[in-house]
Formats: sequence, C-alpha cells, structure tokens
Amino acid sequence: MTRTTRIVSLNRYLPTGRVEPEHFTIRTKELPDLTDGEMLLRPIAFSVDATLRGQLTGQDNYFAPQVPLGEAVTGIAVSEVVESRHPDHQPGDRVVGLVEWADLSVWPPRTDWIGLTKLDPRVRKPSHALGVYGLLGGLTAHTGIIEAGQVTAGETVAVSAAAGNVGSLAGQIARIRGARVIGLAGSEQKRKILTEDLGFDAAVDYRAPDLAEQLRALAPDGPDLYFDSVGGRVSQTVMGLMRRPARVVVCGLISTYDDDTAWTVNIKPLFANGLTLQGYTPVQFHDALPAALDHLVDWVETGQLIPLETERHGLEALPGAISGLYRGENIGKMVVTVP
Amino acid sequence: MTRTTRIVSLNRYLPTGRVEPEHFTIRTKELPDLTDGEMLLRPIAFSVDATLRGQLTGQDNYFAPQVPLGEAVTGIAVSEVVESRHPDHQPGDRVVGLVEWADLSVWPPRTDWIGLTKLDPRVRKPSHALGVYGLLGGLTAHTGIIEAGQVTAGETVAVSAAAGNVGSLAGQIARIRGARVIGLAGSEQKRKILTEDLGFDAAVDYRAPDLAEQLRALAPDGPDLYFDSVGGRVSQTVMGLMRRPARVVVCGLISTYDDDTAWTVNIKPLFANGLTLQGYTPVQFHDALPAALDHLVDWVETGQLIPLETERHGLEALPGAISGLYRGENIGKMVVTVP
Repeated sequence: MTRTTRIVSLNRYLPTGRVEPEHFTIRTKELPDLTDGEMLLRPIAFSVDATLRGQLTGQDNYFAPQVPLGEAVTGIAVSEVVESRHPDHQPGDRVVGLVEWADLSVWPPRTDWIGLTKLDPRVRKPSHALGVYGLLGGLTAHTGIIEAGQVTAGETVAVSAAAGNVGSLAGQIARIRGARVIGLAGSEQKRKILTEDLGFDAAVDYRAPDLAEQLRALAPDGPDLYFDSVGGRVSQTVMGLMRRPARVVVCGLISTYDDDTAWTVNIKPLFANGLTLQGYTPVQFHDALPAALDHLVDWVETGQLIPLETERHGLEALPGAISGLYRGENIGKMVVTVP
Repeated sequence: MTRTTRIVSLNRYLPTGRVEPEHFTIRTKELPDLTDGEMLLRPIAFSVDATLRGQLTGQDNYFAPQVPLGEAVTGIAVSEVVESRHPDHQPGDRVVGLVEWADLSVWPPRTDWIGLTKLDPRVRKPSHALGVYGLLGGLTAHTGIIEAGQVTAGETVAVSAAAGNVGSLAGQIARIRGARVIGLAGSEQKRKILTEDLGFDAAVDYRAPDLAEQLRALAPDGPDLYFDSVGGRVSQTVMGLMRRPARVVVCGLISTYDDDTAWTVNIKPLFANGLTLQGYTPVQFHDALPAALDHLVDWVETGQLIPLETERHGLEALPGAISGLYRGENIGKMVVTVP
C-alpha cells in the first residue's frame, strides 16, 4: 500500500527580493519504502530560520544547498520516530535534525548538512530545542557573546534584531555576563518586552531618524560590542559610534538577504576607530558547545534567561511563517508546531 | 634681521584622485622669532607617508588635520635643534617629531598630533627612526603581526604591499615568528628582493589575472592571516581564499585613498568563512611599544630584520616623493634626506 504525505514545495527561485507565501505550494507526494538506516519521522515542531533565504536564490554559493524546484523545502525540526530501520532510534523517540517540510518525512532527507541527535531529556518543550537550545538560536547567541564577543562585566553591548530569537538571547546572555545592554527593535511592543521582561537596560527604534543621537545619549563613549545579525544601514550607523578599540560580532545579515549589494560595508569606521569585525558561526566553537548548552539549560531553569517564541500551527502555516520572519512578525523564535 | 625658509606648500585640495607633484609649490616665507618653549629645527630626514593623503582632501573627517592651502605641509622628520627656548632640548640635539616641510621649521608647528622625542641613541642612521623604528613603520608592522595578528609559528601569512615599508617589515617579523610568508608586490624586482633578500617564502604579482589560482597553489588551505595595507579588489580576492577561522589585519587602505567608494568591502566572505577583520593603529597597543622597539633594534643589529629604504635628496624632492609613493615607486621606506 502506498502512503502519501503533504509537502511544502518551492515554486521558483528568488535571487533577490522578498519571500512571499505564494512562492510555496502545498502538494501531496508518495512516500517510498524505508531501506536500512532510514526512518520515517513525524515533525512536531518546525524551526523557521532566516538562513533559509540563502537556499532559495537558485545560486549555488551558500553554505547549505539550494532547494530543488517542486520539491520539499528542508529545515530543522523536532520529530517523533514513526518507523525505524536505524539501529540507534526506535518508534516513539524524539529526535532533532533536518526533515522535509511535510507531515511525514523520510530521514535522511535528500541532503543532510546538520546530523541527527536525540532530543536532550532536559528540554521541557520540544520547540525549545530549536530556539533557546538550538544551534541557530541559543548556541549562536552564547558563542557570539562569550567566545567571539568576549563580553566582560561593565561593558556596553548593542544588539540588533534584539526581539528576534538570537538577539533576545544574546542580549540576555550579555546581561547575565554583567554587561549593560541596548537593544534595537522596530516596534513599541518589542521594545517594551526587552526592557520590562528581559532586563535590557534600554531599547531603541532602529528606524528612528535620530538613531545615532539616541545611541549617543545612551552610551556617550559608544558600545564596546555590537552583536549584529542584520547588517546594512543600521549597522553602518552603529559602527560609526563605537568606542575604540571595539568589536562587531556578526552572526547573520538578515537585511542583506533580499539584496546582494547590501553585503558591502564601508569599513572606514573599522579602520578609523580600530574596530574588529568578526563573522562567525557557532560550529567554529564546537568544543565550547556542550558547556554552552549546560549554561543555557541552567539559566532557563533558574529563570534568568527567558525564551521568547512566536508559535504558529500546522504544516500550512509554514509559508506564512517564513515570509513573516523577514517582515519581523516574530517575537523571539518563530516556530510552527503540529499537534 | 628677518630670516626666511623655503617651504613645500599645498596648492589645492584633492577629495579624490591622484596626488601629483604640481599640487605643491616651493616658496619662501619669513620665520618668526622664537618664544618660550619653542625651537628652531633643521630637518635632516623627512618621512614620506601614505597617511598624508587624508590630510589633502579638504574634508575634515580624518584623524589628522587638513593641510591649509598655501601653507606648509607637515610631516614627521628627524631634525637637528638649531636654536632652543625649550628646557629639554639643546642646539645640536637630534629629535623626532612633526615639522613643516621646510629648510627650517619652528617647533611646535601649527598643529602637533605626534609629540616630540629625542632620537633614540640606538638608531645608527637617522632615517631608520622613520622607517624600521618609526610609529608608522616598524611599530605598525610589529603591533600588527604580534598584537593584532597574534601570528604563531607554522601559520601562513599573506602580506599586501609587501615591498613597501610596513609590508616588508611585517612579512619579516612574521617570518621571525616562524610563519610561512607570501608577499604581494607589483614588480619583478620587488618580488625578487622579497624572496632572495628578505626571506619571504613566496612572492606573487597582485596584478596577475590568475592571482587567486597562484595563491591557492601556494597555500591550498588558504592563509591564516592577511596583513593588509592596501584594500580594494586584491583584498577582496584574498579574503575569499582564507581558511576558517582566519584573521585580516588592516593598518591602512592605500588603494582607497584616491577613491572614497573603494572603502566598501563585500563582507560575505567574512561571514561565510568566519573571518575576523581588524582595523588597528599602533597607538592602540601603546603599552607594547617599548618592548616592540627593543625587538626591532635587536633584530636589526643581529641582521634578522633588513630595513629597506628608497632615499631621495633635498627639500625639492618631497613633492615627487609623495606622488611616487602612491605609484609604488618606493622599495621599503620612502625618505627624503637633507645633507
């Protein structure tokens, strides 16, 4: 008996421009029989990540492979094992890894650049494995602030996309580390959450025409560290205000994903102010990751670190969720759960 | 009796474009009488530095002040004290500091952003105080390789403008530190000096159409450190080839001085390759400077570090010397001496 599943497939490539829900179609496909080493997984929480943008351009110059047209988008998810021909995993196990955006997904999917792990038993809510404990979430924030950023007590740290998943965690980790934290966020609601719920010292609107003046008033000597996941005009402004020698730590450049020219940066402030601009990925600090995860679990359990989530429901919510992510509709981790 | 001196004065500002000898005029001006704290200096060795470019734009956004039109260019020089109303310096003393480009210069000049020091008695040739022992020379190279670059034995270091003053010293210091050194230089003669006289492991033509392939052949994993004083297209190429995580240390961007748009860098390789781009000036590492000078003296005395110089003669040679510097006419330190 053939079994089928719904998948979210890509209609066309977008070298530049904004990702819209209509770039995706939900369709049905047949599931193959499992061979040795394979499993059938049922995703229960999909991670919606900005990094997907680089897999939708049709240009093979990204660290992750392009999504083939008409085939399922792949992404990280927490899944339940439905059937297993893999020696290490039994039906009912919960695992974290790359799956197709589908009701049911054969693992490994057509390409796997992540690897599969069992869900850590300390994770109380499955989606936390994607957000606060995720490689592209808490571990990116932790390694960025601690390893790349080397933040010390008393420093001033500015954080872009501060109400996003990585930014909200990076700012809180800097605060736990004893730094003064200024968050950049685009809505009144987000800024209120940063200062009232997450303990940020200040929050400013990155769209404000007097952004430079506001930042100068909050930090007359300038920030010591700028934790950036956005890039573009805002970052250029912040870079011009930093005290010397200061550090800019870059874990992503979400403002540039729709516009390839926005990857260019005028580095005059770097040179003139003795700044250091460091691009990094958490994988680069792999030896530090187990201890980082221990810290994150401890901080969440003791209430020092608050994981924010924007949760949507059902496979059909995925196209709108990824599109909404680039519009800043999320507060904290954007996740799509399936009951 | 009024005394006069010849000065090299600036005719017009150059926001962009190439510095030519005709942008300067040699004219005569009267010397004022000295007041308390002042001295009359006779420069015997003028330092010809790329940093002057930023003082010729007419735009007041540089770390050093603009040269007023019709007045003397100022620059670092070794001088003899002719007359002194300064308590610390007697006639006949040799000092290093900012002077007017003139036969005789009243110190302090109209602005002094450097400070005056006595010529270190260990300096055997006055011009060495400007090159191998100079703040914009050996001390920039030393702090760039050791403090900013943190070069360790066995690493591969690429150096731009490797036959220039800072580049030739930076490459040699990296070699002394146990690194493998690849120099970029624009002429056959320069490349020959690098590999045959200065102990560079390889030298390549930065203008070669197959620059990337040549570098890949010399360093299949890519350089660990790129010591850059040039910027622009060449740096972009090197940044795309480096192993991760690697460092780019920037002490100047000579290719951009004539063209403000060239300050922009596509930082995709930084982000994608986990690179760190660090702008620095030696002043930032002021605590390390005395020990750095001791190292430099020791290495020169023991023949491990060879200071290269391009020496021209007489005040009237200064306009051609600064213009020639931007054309790459120098090998090592460009200096104008006065007998």
